[in-house]
Amino acid sequence: MRYHKIPDETVRRLPIYLRGLMLSATRGREHISSQSLADFVGVNSWQIRKDFSYFGDFGTPGVGYNIEGLAKQIKKILRLDVVRKAALVGVGDLGSALLAYPGFRTYGLDIVAAFDVDAEKIGSAVSGVEIENITRIATLQERGISLGIVAVPHTAGQFIADKLVEAGVRGILNFAPCKIDAPRRVKIITLDIAMELARLPYYMPAG
Amino acid sequence: MRYHKIPDETVRRLPIYLRGLMLSATRGREHISSQSLADFVGVNSWQIRKDFSYFGDFGTPGVGYNIEGLAKQIKKILRLDVVRKAALVGVGDLGSALLAYPGFRTYGLDIVAAFDVDAEKIGSAVSGVEIENITRIATLQERGISLGIVAVPHTAGQFIADKLVEAGVRGILNFAPCKIDAPRRVKIITLDIAMELARLPYYMPAG
Repeated sequence: MRYHKIPDETVRRLPIYLRGLMLSATRGREHISSQSLADFVGVNSWQIRKDFSYFGDFGTPGVGYNIEGLAKQIKKILRLDVVRKAALVGVGDLGSALLAYPGFRTYGLDIVAAFDVDAEKIGSAVSGVEIENITRIATLQERGISLGIVAVPHTAGQFIADKLVEAGVRGILNFAPCKIDAPRRVKIITLDIAMELARLPYYMPAG
Repeated sequence: MRYHKIPDETVRRLPIYLRGLMLSATRGREHISSQSLADFVGVNSWQIRKDFSYFGDFGTPGVGYNIEGLAKQIKKILRLDVVRKAALVGVGDLGSALLAYPGFRTYGLDIVAAFDVDAEKIGSAVSGVEIENITRIATLQERGISLGIVAVPHTAGQFIADKLVEAGVRGILNFAPCKIDAPRRVKIITLDIAMELARLPYYMPAG
């Protein structure tokens, strides 16, 4: 079954619910009410019920949602039930941190390749992943790698994205502080960390 | 002048416009049309005009927006025109990368303090910032540090946030994969990198 009609905003919240459900499961719970999940993840319970209605899970009245079943269903909808191979480009400070970050595996994502232009880095390993020459991005398709993670300076962002698209990548997580263009078949998510922090002072009283 | 009526969604886009304007300025341009800015940052031009109308900059017909003036205005609205001091908690892989990341300074944010629990790290320096014992978070207020960056494991996230709030912090950028509760006067932005990546496979065709 495919779920074509789930709105983007709901898709954005599904990983939040999944994280909440997984944390609840580690605490030994079997069921959770939409209100408890709401308190836990910080989303309104009516929003949760509406989001879950898109894929038909209404829970059991008085009992709530089955945590394991619901987590499994969300993983399936997000297509996290199969492990996907990802490649990282740019093994600087941020890139190295991403390679070391255990959080990706929780969501079925495995960074199996890393690329850089720096001759001194090429051939060495970071967190068990060998750093390859950036020219080898062209080998991604034959290696079954469909996700790219861009952690290069903004001046190189578009160039690297083009190379990843040429190599058959279907999705890109972009950490470079620049907009990236790609064909519509390639989904791009840009995460500019400094820009997120830049929103904070607006909400802080002066002084 | 304070700008109370700017919607959150517009505030979210202002740093994107600012980044685009700053990049345009480095290319030697003085004016930019809403359409050019739209192409550059990937937001519709009608949306840009609507967003800018909240603070009264309508540009000059046929000439466009003055890049330097508009960037200055957005910086002022976002309160990035003064440098703010930030403290980082958790100097692991991600924390170290954040300390090394030059992007924060672009937005008037200066990480001047770092804390960890690891006795082996305390006293050493990462990217020029000395790592202090986590108990010293209590000194933030007297040091004029009003922003906290949380890069600890999710099990410690709430505990550290509480300590930061006690120490008078007004805003928190949370990288720990957990929800954090705080009094309403404290603005929290959570950035769970793995969760952002978890949205990608949904948009990728199978195979």
